[in-house]
Amino acid sequence: MPDKEMYALQLQQVEEAIKTVRGKKFNAVYMIACGGSKSTFGPAQYIFDSESDLPAYVLTSNEFNYRKPKQFTPQSLVLTCSHSGNTPETVQATQAAKDMGCVTICLSNKIDSELWQAANHGVYYGWGDYNPAYGKSAMLYRMVFGVLNELSPNERFVRAIKHIDALETLVPKNKDLFAQRAAAWGKEHKREPIIYTMASGEYYPEAYSFAVCLLMEMQWIHSSSIHSGEYFHGPFEITDYDVPFLMFMSRGKTRYLDQRALNFAQKYSDKVTVIDAQEFNLGDIEEDLQSYFAAIIMTPVARQYADSIADHRGHPLSVRRYMWRMEY
Amino acid sequence: MPDKEMYALQLQQVEEAIKTVRGKKFNAVYMIACGGSKSTFGPAQYIFDSESDLPAYVLTSNEFNYRKPKQFTPQSLVLTCSHSGNTPETVQATQAAKDMGCVTICLSNKIDSELWQAANHGVYYGWGDYNPAYGKSAMLYRMVFGVLNELSPNERFVRAIKHIDALETLVPKNKDLFAQRAAAWGKEHKREPIIYTMASGEYYPEAYSFAVCLLMEMQWIHSSSIHSGEYFHGPFEITDYDVPFLMFMSRGKTRYLDQRALNFAQKYSDKVTVIDAQEFNLGDIEEDLQSYFAAIIMTPVARQYADSIADHRGHPLSVRRYMWRMEY
Repeated sequence: MPDKEMYALQLQQVEEAIKTVRGKKFNAVYMIACGGSKSTFGPAQYIFDSESDLPAYVLTSNEFNYRKPKQFTPQSLVLTCSHSGNTPETVQATQAAKDMGCVTICLSNKIDSELWQAANHGVYYGWGDYNPAYGKSAMLYRMVFGVLNELSPNERFVRAIKHIDALETLVPKNKDLFAQRAAAWGKEHKREPIIYTMASGEYYPEAYSFAVCLLMEMQWIHSSSIHSGEYFHGPFEITDYDVPFLMFMSRGKTRYLDQRALNFAQKYSDKVTVIDAQEFNLGDIEEDLQSYFAAIIMTPVARQYADSIADHRGHPLSVRRYMWRMEY
Repeated sequence: MPDKEMYALQLQQVEEAIKTVRGKKFNAVYMIACGGSKSTFGPAQYIFDSESDLPAYVLTSNEFNYRKPKQFTPQSLVLTCSHSGNTPETVQATQAAKDMGCVTICLSNKIDSELWQAANHGVYYGWGDYNPAYGKSAMLYRMVFGVLNELSPNERFVRAIKHIDALETLVPKNKDLFAQRAAAWGKEHKREPIIYTMASGEYYPEAYSFAVCLLMEMQWIHSSSIHSGEYFHGPFEITDYDVPFLMFMSRGKTRYLDQRALNFAQKYSDKVTVIDAQEFNLGDIEEDLQSYFAAIIMTPVARQYADSIADHRGHPLSVRRYMWRMEY
């Protein structure tokens, strides 16, 4: 299917999913997935927390499957995500939610996957070179702001939806802005045995997924994501001249937390790198929405840092020793 | 003050705090603290999630201060904790909550501290050799089950409160059970540059605090806590014969997640250590409450492993290079 037709189909999928929430009253939103898919839901949780009275939770799928919270009822809205559409624990969670009578919407790169079958509604997202305005985070934002606007109409949500198309140009622009720095970072860090990531607020999920998916999974480099607000309450004691940190710095409400951690880290480590969302070009996105968008533009910008270290280490991001290669 | 009089005072503090929630209707519980104090709230959040319809959140203090969720209102119940009672961001959060009109209860090792002044009610907990039935987690449980029972009376909560006194004997019993293994672990791991911790459910907060407070802060050993349910979605790729894991294994609902991760980790790493809550002696605590108690007995049991590695490395747990030694 040509891309343009696919975009139209994707918008229609979102529209149909949003239609189901019309007139409904939910007690909570559960966003359920694993690993990178789980961390994609992080900024959405932040948005629900900031914009809505609806309790919003992100749970790793088997935590949901094995100990369903008491608040999880047929009145819960359930969003799930799996790239391949066949992550067994996410399929199981989705099916359980649908069986419970919940409105259940999945995001996947695979139409008609097991996940897709298990949900009431599926929303497709593109990957790789696909238009970022129809990628994973973009489709999630179309859904989240659409749902918020259905539940409690607000011009702010309408504006947010309108801006999503701009990701088509904003993502490559901001990638370009950091391309040289990303290339240098990979070379400088190729021998590091451990690299810490750090962030706060709606950017913290990127620190988590960069640590667990890009560094640990795809590079076999030891890592841990540190919340900037927690740094001074334990983790900062491992700071030393040769300990590398990669900070995803907020342009939103929690920037102070990052700045404070950064000031300290830079004083005692010679290896602190910052990707500062304040530098991002956000076109005509208004101030009150900028940080939400910067948080998802951070992902493709940061990805370049992973591409670079993979290249310099001769260890492609696609290499695995266990994942997909054996039963587990 | 003799210990017995202190216990009576502590029980009176809890009683008074609980009295304030009588007849009130809350929209959410916010538990706010940093580092080790924050992770103490983890099992309480799990209990609220499992036993109550009330949304329960744990936030690091400055995340709360800088981006208060929309659900935070005068109808929110706020619990905060700081050992010293002077953690500035936790004092600030407590004061803000009280100013907002919330019922605000703090836990602290310091009576009349700044934190204590900022809250409506203070609950003291003992430390070190103090009776564990009046320690931090025990006092928290007295408060949490007390609050739950006020909001929605249940014999289960009454039973839970009744069992808290048994921690006085159960904690030393279970410490003894693991003492030799803890001593061996410290010797075997004293040269490790990185040690991963792993857990799930109500035990995950222990994996987090062991990583950030005991290993990173108090031993300057690199670490990261891995959620057993997330292990297969990224982190497991760093597993290798020489990569050490310390697993805090659940005897509750999420045990399967731990078992699955453990089976894999043991196959590819020669350095997997398990502290299995299933082995704990829980006296006459009934099955339906056992895992809640095991989760907090895990802390003093695991502490012995930290004591041992500190001893073998000649690096006392009390040593800091930055914390309390400079402005930050």
